[in-house]
Amino acid sequence: MNQSWWLEPCKAIDGEARNAAFERQQQLTKPTGSLGLLEQVAVQLAGLQGRLKPRVDHLWIAIFAGDHGVVAEGVSAYPQEVTGQMLANFVAGGAAISVLARQLGAQLDVNDLGTVTPMLNLPGVRHWQIGAGTANFTQAPAMTEAQGLQALEAGRDSVRRAVAAGSELFIGGEMGIGNTAAASAVACALLGCPASLLAGPGTGLDPAGVSRKAQVIERALALHAEHTSDPLQALFRLGGFEVAALAGAYLACAQEGVAALVDGFICSVAAMVAVRLNPDCRDWLIFGHRGAELGHRHVLESLLAEPLLELGLRLGEGSGAALAVPLVRLACDLHGQMATFAEAAVADRPA
Amino acid sequence: MNQSWWLEPCKAIDGEARNAAFERQQQLTKPTGSLGLLEQVAVQLAGLQGRLKPRVDHLWIAIFAGDHGVVAEGVSAYPQEVTGQMLANFVAGGAAISVLARQLGAQLDVNDLGTVTPMLNLPGVRHWQIGAGTANFTQAPAMTEAQGLQALEAGRDSVRRAVAAGSELFIGGEMGIGNTAAASAVACALLGCPASLLAGPGTGLDPAGVSRKAQVIERALALHAEHTSDPLQALFRLGGFEVAALAGAYLACAQEGVAALVDGFICSVAAMVAVRLNPDCRDWLIFGHRGAELGHRHVLESLLAEPLLELGLRLGEGSGAALAVPLVRLACDLHGQMATFAEAAVADRPA
Repeated sequence: MNQSWWLEPCKAIDGEARNAAFERQQQLTKPTGSLGLLEQVAVQLAGLQGRLKPRVDHLWIAIFAGDHGVVAEGVSAYPQEVTGQMLANFVAGGAAISVLARQLGAQLDVNDLGTVTPMLNLPGVRHWQIGAGTANFTQAPAMTEAQGLQALEAGRDSVRRAVAAGSELFIGGEMGIGNTAAASAVACALLGCPASLLAGPGTGLDPAGVSRKAQVIERALALHAEHTSDPLQALFRLGGFEVAALAGAYLACAQEGVAALVDGFICSVAAMVAVRLNPDCRDWLIFGHRGAELGHRHVLESLLAEPLLELGLRLGEGSGAALAVPLVRLACDLHGQMATFAEAAVADRPA
Repeated sequence: MNQSWWLEPCKAIDGEARNAAFERQQQLTKPTGSLGLLEQVAVQLAGLQGRLKPRVDHLWIAIFAGDHGVVAEGVSAYPQEVTGQMLANFVAGGAAISVLARQLGAQLDVNDLGTVTPMLNLPGVRHWQIGAGTANFTQAPAMTEAQGLQALEAGRDSVRRAVAAGSELFIGGEMGIGNTAAASAVACALLGCPASLLAGPGTGLDPAGVSRKAQVIERALALHAEHTSDPLQALFRLGGFEVAALAGAYLACAQEGVAALVDGFICSVAAMVAVRLNPDCRDWLIFGHRGAELGHRHVLESLLAEPLLELGLRLGEGSGAALAVPLVRLACDLHGQMATFAEAAVADRPA
């Protein structure tokens, strides 16, 4: 295996299709720019898909789950066993993302990267068995290098299967009790921020819990400080299996040429890692929503991302990105189906 | 005709269904509150529809179009003929709202309240012929009392047809060159604001045009000042046929018991008029989006409205509300189809 596949070039954007789509937007029967962000999304997708009228008929939603050793430090409101239980819920159809995938007609790809639940063997789940959760990063690196590479590869593998299935949009989601702590730690290392700026309540910590979480992250940042200026080392030492898989997935999306719709805080941190590793990958990312977690705003700003939704979500699972899919689809429908001023014999504004 | 039908009581909310829906939300397999605004929408709709699991399968979109005498003062970037031309575009299927209605499976009800185009007779359009546009409100009341009552009634008529067709959600949209000037004037009268705070570029005025528009509105506010503390008089003297029809529609929605999803600036001003006339009508309104027009934010705040979307839209036609429909539907799907902690055997957080 070439250990730095993620440094290989991203697919080039089709400038001709993008420009043609931009021109078309100016001719549709509406005031210029009046569809706001939806016009930008349609034009961006035209460039990514290399066609004047992009479509998102085939949708792939990959869930990456993993457990986190740092939960031993009391950074989550939920017990760690929930990660494995939710994996069963994903495939049984009762989780939020299961409902959304069904309603959106998406292919749901459920990946267990490694949980604390022994011998988990669920039909419909891909068990990668990278480890029984990560190590407690306040005491040691969260992952070994070998584990990190495996997780990156699991993300790429899902993207390649998505592309083989004809997917026109890739959504990555995550599940893992404790993973906002891991994502916050990675983001602090990459942005050079104090933990108090990025640590939030996650699934529901009280203020004392948030404060403890920030202290736990500060201890980890101090322990690994010599290594974490390198984004890959920050990911391996402070991240989680699912964060690494998501970073690998976004990188692979850009290389394989499929647009990725990024979900909430944890996915955005993974996107930030991906962009640090291979900056051209940024062009292939569309951002689904701005979530409730404190750190998400900062991470989005660092990526110059303007997300489609802001609904106060803090669920994860790819749910915020999935909720944005109808907007992306309607943006394509409006772009493709509206009449031009000439076609409709409507007077355009005087030039 | 009872001239004050809009003062009759609104339908009462089903508190039992709403409370049961709230309880259900607490039991679904997700952290409490993690679906943000979507949880509130599902619970509100349960109370409005009087059932534990609300649905929005049958959707009604009514467009109300009218012309505005104030366009003579140079308050729009587009010629007035566009209103009639767009009516043809609505029924031909090429307008933004036509595309959205088709994709959402909505019934599209197109109402021409009165335009400057003589003898307009379009198949599929309901021509109310209230007048050849409103009068120039810098010189006279925009509407006579009789015209205003006809416009309110046109809104109610659409709602009654929507209810007869089994609609579970009503969207009102508008089209009318110059109607942001009329809506701004009404909002200024009701909120006691200077025109400079609420007047914006509409479909695309330059800064000089916005300044002129604000001056035009100030002149009208001064002319009608003695009458406009009454919301109905403010509507008739400063509004437009479509603004009045929308106000009538929202009032009728609350009386007939169908939830209304409010679109952008002009619709929100009509909603404000409706709430001033009959405050209980507020409970029946869900707000689709916060648009780009300057005044929209203030009007939404005055209504304590928390809209679902913010995409920089400034198109009208009901498009922003229509774009929010998939979120409302997915909120219902999540609410209705997710597993509870007990059903999925997932550990809830310790109480």
